[in-house]
Amino acid sequence: MNNFELYNPVKLVFGKDQVSKLTDLIPANAKVMVIYGGGSIFKNGVYDAVKQNLSAFEWAEFGGIEPNPHFETCIKAVEAIEKHGSTFLLAVGGGSVIDATKFIAAAACYTGDDAWKIISEKAPVTSALPFGTVLTLAATGSEMNSGSVITKAATQEKMAFGSPLSFPKFSIVDPTYAATLPHRQIANGIVDAFTHTVEQYVTYDVNTPLQDRWAESILLTLIEEGPKVLANPNDYESMANLMWCATCALNGQLRVGVATDWGTHGVGHELTALHGIDHARTLAIVLPGVWKVFSTEKKGKLLQYGARVWNITEGSEEERVAKAIQATVDFFESLGVPTTLDRYELGQPTIEQVVGRFKARNWTAIGDRQLFTQDKIAEILNLQLAL
Amino acid sequence: MNNFELYNPVKLVFGKDQVSKLTDLIPANAKVMVIYGGGSIFKNGVYDAVKQNLSAFEWAEFGGIEPNPHFETCIKAVEAIEKHGSTFLLAVGGGSVIDATKFIAAAACYTGDDAWKIISEKAPVTSALPFGTVLTLAATGSEMNSGSVITKAATQEKMAFGSPLSFPKFSIVDPTYAATLPHRQIANGIVDAFTHTVEQYVTYDVNTPLQDRWAESILLTLIEEGPKVLANPNDYESMANLMWCATCALNGQLRVGVATDWGTHGVGHELTALHGIDHARTLAIVLPGVWKVFSTEKKGKLLQYGARVWNITEGSEEERVAKAIQATVDFFESLGVPTTLDRYELGQPTIEQVVGRFKARNWTAIGDRQLFTQDKIAEILNLQLAL
Repeated sequence: MNNFELYNPVKLVFGKDQVSKLTDLIPANAKVMVIYGGGSIFKNGVYDAVKQNLSAFEWAEFGGIEPNPHFETCIKAVEAIEKHGSTFLLAVGGGSVIDATKFIAAAACYTGDDAWKIISEKAPVTSALPFGTVLTLAATGSEMNSGSVITKAATQEKMAFGSPLSFPKFSIVDPTYAATLPHRQIANGIVDAFTHTVEQYVTYDVNTPLQDRWAESILLTLIEEGPKVLANPNDYESMANLMWCATCALNGQLRVGVATDWGTHGVGHELTALHGIDHARTLAIVLPGVWKVFSTEKKGKLLQYGARVWNITEGSEEERVAKAIQATVDFFESLGVPTTLDRYELGQPTIEQVVGRFKARNWTAIGDRQLFTQDKIAEILNLQLAL
Repeated sequence: MNNFELYNPVKLVFGKDQVSKLTDLIPANAKVMVIYGGGSIFKNGVYDAVKQNLSAFEWAEFGGIEPNPHFETCIKAVEAIEKHGSTFLLAVGGGSVIDATKFIAAAACYTGDDAWKIISEKAPVTSALPFGTVLTLAATGSEMNSGSVITKAATQEKMAFGSPLSFPKFSIVDPTYAATLPHRQIANGIVDAFTHTVEQYVTYDVNTPLQDRWAESILLTLIEEGPKVLANPNDYESMANLMWCATCALNGQLRVGVATDWGTHGVGHELTALHGIDHARTLAIVLPGVWKVFSTEKKGKLLQYGARVWNITEGSEEERVAKAIQATVDFFESLGVPTTLDRYELGQPTIEQVVGRFKARNWTAIGDRQLFTQDKIAEILNLQLAL
């Protein structure tokens, strides 16, 4: 096991009717800015529930955070916060709204000339507004970590940032509000949580049997519960299990002591930045190619994954690895998430664009053991041109 | 899944040479009181390592915390702290030292007439000294939770307390220092972590597949790694896995959303209070009796436990339950931990004493669904008189 630090001060409040705890969770006398996305919160009932529980506070709202949230929109939110004099932010929505709120909280306190430098130059975050979240879908785990991914629309750059000041003070997760989600978003959430898990598991063995079993626990539960939720989003119990899996896939518990990868995310982000493809869908495209290209380097973990998650125990090592990859592709496809570029109307030119962006940034390699060189990234995407 | 809240702000710092981070983890200008137990910290090297990394601080020490720490000793520590003017406590040792430090931290700030009331009357803890820990053995999980168990020697009472102010600010876990532990303490640690896990798992189903699998992950890893550590405590990797299991068995992650029990602990505490038996050993005595007496009420989970942890899949339900219980007994005994009262030179009179204490406190029932009535407690212990 590698040395590690684990720190996660988020108070997670999970279950039915937990939005009623907002009154106690938000500091007394706070001036609250509610931040949300495209308006789904008006349809699923959460806006009304939040409003009802903010009556003790002076509050205002800022809507319109887009999926893959834009830096430019965040800056508008900062202006609204300055005008309002907000002292506490409340993100209501999914991963994009929460990611945006993390950046807004830091940018609102940033004293430099250009808040994009927090991301592009990793300018230190020395203070940030405190914030809480009300999560309405299962996906990114952002509700229980300090990470955020922001896109600068002007330059089509999608980049991550994080700081110890970027943990939510609390996150309320009530699976009831996820019941109205469209099939596409639920399927995306399953793929996202699945890929977060394998990015921290399918690398190489450093003797972490407990962490390995935890990762397998999440994968098995996603495979079991995901299809139930897709068949009936009103199945509260299954939705609760799915949302809890998604939170735990990225709350820090899986990464401790293990070798992580994140190469699939690195390549996927470029597909979103260039073509606006849903984050989870980019992962579904990239992951199978990654495993095919690095099947030797990742062999031990792929065999373990195949055996414990998909019960693949017969055949040669090569055959079992191939079966494990195919089982993953079949699972993603069964959720309605296409795993090849052609079905997003993309092809060879996109591969050149993606590689070109790594070249332009002088990134020689990313991911697990820096395996993802520019050549390998091209090879990965070439394998995913079509089924 | 039941509604739940999860909050754990402990910074866990795990691995080789992490004691060197003390300098940064303790607040600048703190006056530190180092609290320890019977002196094993002088043999395993941790005292020297701690001392070396406290050179930036004014510090003093208080030794002599006993296993199943006494209220009376804690009060002496409070006096030493007042004399020294300590502003930060550092527990160096195992679960007993950490439990004691949690109580000392609260008692040092208590303004009432008798600090025992924090425990006996649940007098509110409104302030407490901040503290960190350096853990030297795997067992209680106290390094990453806010719970504590204290014994009043004068009245032979052993009782739990906890408060949101009782979380360590940080805990350093370096498995190196556990290498000198005697066989008995390692075996106790395995049984303790095992029982913590099943107290949060072998109850009844409330549709928590992820939490169930996590519990099974810890049990499987303890069964796999525990014997390796006993065979060779210098096996750093296995010791690391054991210690990480023990931390995770009681850091709050397993209990969320599930039905918990803690009846085995409730009965076990009485055996320690009356006869000074090691905490873990009392659990090894009580647990098999609990499962035998409540085999119907806990049938679903016992069958699942048998199948997934011990691969018991053949025979009638009754046979499989019996096999699962026997596998547990065999495991504890294989570690050198006796599971019957006779081997602690206890018998019928002890059973009457234990039941008498529940009667004296007017406790009609404890544990999972309040199944542990006084009659049932007698029945449980009667089954554990001898193998």
